[in-house]
Amino acid sequence: MAKRQKKSIGVDLGGTKILTCAIDEKDRVVGRYKTSTPAKDGADAVVLAIDSAVRSLCESIHWDFDAIEAVGAAVPAPVDPEVGIVEKATNLGWIDFPAKKALEKLLKKRIHLENDVNAGTYGESVFGAGRGFGDIVGIFLGTGIGGGIVLNGKLHRGKNRAAGEVGHMVIQEGGYRQGLGFPGTFESVASRMAIQKYLVGKMKEGKKSLLLKKHKKQLDDPHLRIKSGDLRKAAEAGDKLVLKALHRNAHSIGIHCAGLINFLGPEIIILGGGVMEALEPFLLQTIIDTVEEYTFEITRRGVEITVAKLGDDAVPLGAAALAREKRKN
Amino acid sequence: MAKRQKKSIGVDLGGTKILTCAIDEKDRVVGRYKTSTPAKDGADAVVLAIDSAVRSLCESIHWDFDAIEAVGAAVPAPVDPEVGIVEKATNLGWIDFPAKKALEKLLKKRIHLENDVNAGTYGESVFGAGRGFGDIVGIFLGTGIGGGIVLNGKLHRGKNRAAGEVGHMVIQEGGYRQGLGFPGTFESVASRMAIQKYLVGKMKEGKKSLLLKKHKKQLDDPHLRIKSGDLRKAAEAGDKLVLKALHRNAHSIGIHCAGLINFLGPEIIILGGGVMEALEPFLLQTIIDTVEEYTFEITRRGVEITVAKLGDDAVPLGAAALAREKRKN
Repeated sequence: MAKRQKKSIGVDLGGTKILTCAIDEKDRVVGRYKTSTPAKDGADAVVLAIDSAVRSLCESIHWDFDAIEAVGAAVPAPVDPEVGIVEKATNLGWIDFPAKKALEKLLKKRIHLENDVNAGTYGESVFGAGRGFGDIVGIFLGTGIGGGIVLNGKLHRGKNRAAGEVGHMVIQEGGYRQGLGFPGTFESVASRMAIQKYLVGKMKEGKKSLLLKKHKKQLDDPHLRIKSGDLRKAAEAGDKLVLKALHRNAHSIGIHCAGLINFLGPEIIILGGGVMEALEPFLLQTIIDTVEEYTFEITRRGVEITVAKLGDDAVPLGAAALAREKRKN
Repeated sequence: MAKRQKKSIGVDLGGTKILTCAIDEKDRVVGRYKTSTPAKDGADAVVLAIDSAVRSLCESIHWDFDAIEAVGAAVPAPVDPEVGIVEKATNLGWIDFPAKKALEKLLKKRIHLENDVNAGTYGESVFGAGRGFGDIVGIFLGTGIGGGIVLNGKLHRGKNRAAGEVGHMVIQEGGYRQGLGFPGTFESVASRMAIQKYLVGKMKEGKKSLLLKKHKKQLDDPHLRIKSGDLRKAAEAGDKLVLKALHRNAHSIGIHCAGLINFLGPEIIILGGGVMEALEPFLLQTIIDTVEEYTFEITRRGVEITVAKLGDDAVPLGAAALAREKRKN
């Protein structure tokens, strides 16, 4: 008989916000609590903010703090859950910070530290689009692109606990570089920043778009941010330039999904992140069609390509689920 | 205590030759036997040839045929070892051929059917460059490019038993197509055929090369085959065009290895196949340097990139090792 699960809490520690979720003995999501991350005040302040958020969550759902078995904390960096030290988290300004120990000291709970995208993939695998599947690839498309791998129902972390970095695989050798990554990678080609770069280039060449109404004066602004929601509105209004950009984007996502299917042979690929959430109707079918073009029938047979279900909850829920598992995962 | 291994035989069934190897109770390679594949005479003739090759091998090493526990047969196609039917093996002309049953009937032994590149990767993992490693990616570079994945010491076959197809991942979106694959794939860009295509193009443009001595009149011949050995001779003689082609090739191999490290986080990548065997001195360092360029230190730390050790023996040895393992592998 399966062991009865305990109550646990998951924390998604982002550069700007801390999101917590509580799951009860029956895998139900009982509550959420959100606060901002005092990243500028240093690591100790952030740990205090996590402690405070977890306690506030407990209060809000009338949980006895002592009844919580474990807390999972997801951080935007590769991390070895056994060691618990965050070597480098750029968004938080952390270098070699012993986050697990610091949280244990304050919360006096068993702490499971995990990379955030790993936690998100695991969250989708347990509670979301991946339920019932064993071998899963999660791809989260946003300003950047992250990913995670679940094999046989367990997180696959790889040699340096950094596996799943689908965004840092080259799909356009000789292509351009975007952000912190390498030239021609999936992230450089297919992230929201890449879509934006393409659109800005075309608008500066004189191509028309509804986006010009809002962004015309910002085309040279390094802080320009064309949101996924604005892309969606333009696409819904039939904006040809945006539709073309999204088609190109979906094609790149499709060839990369195809490559990952050919290489790893997962049962399902789950596509999440802000770009997918906002733009699914303009992306998913082209992605699926492109996967058909770039795989053999014998290889893709029965492999599902689907959209994540949990949104922002995926990360804290995955962290909470990982935390309560005594078996090494 | 580990169970004592039994004697087993492995068969590499290729489109032109059948190569067999015998391993004894102490993991020693006791003998080899090679014969040609009567592919044109149909599947039954091929199965008879395998049976005959296995028996000839036994005779040549004075093994009692009855003392052999199992036979592993590696085929150039994806195959489910449990089902044992080869759906499509182009090189052999097989369609939906129940190879496992046919071999069992004739040899009266437990038969393990496996994809050849999977067997080769497993062979390297047990007897070759991968000894002592748990998570391994094997990449075999030749006329085409195949690969295999070992995780936790076990073959990872994936959803449709076709995982490991590193050659069919796009690394040059929008690039050209080579052979049976898709446009811009690693195989289209980095196989021996891709090197040849580049060199022929350049020579037809008027670029000088020592290769012209032998191949000048064949540049438009669709059956032209510039062998890896000829490339090596030209490179050793300082042929600038060939050296440039090999540098490009190594760069593509490097970015792909980097991508696989970023995604799967293996402990070791093993590079094998005819191209690597012949051209290692002109490829390996550039591959390693390029991996450094396209990975973060935290991701590549401790990951080894090395050359396969077993040559043609990898496939039959891997098949033999898989055959004797009672546990599902």
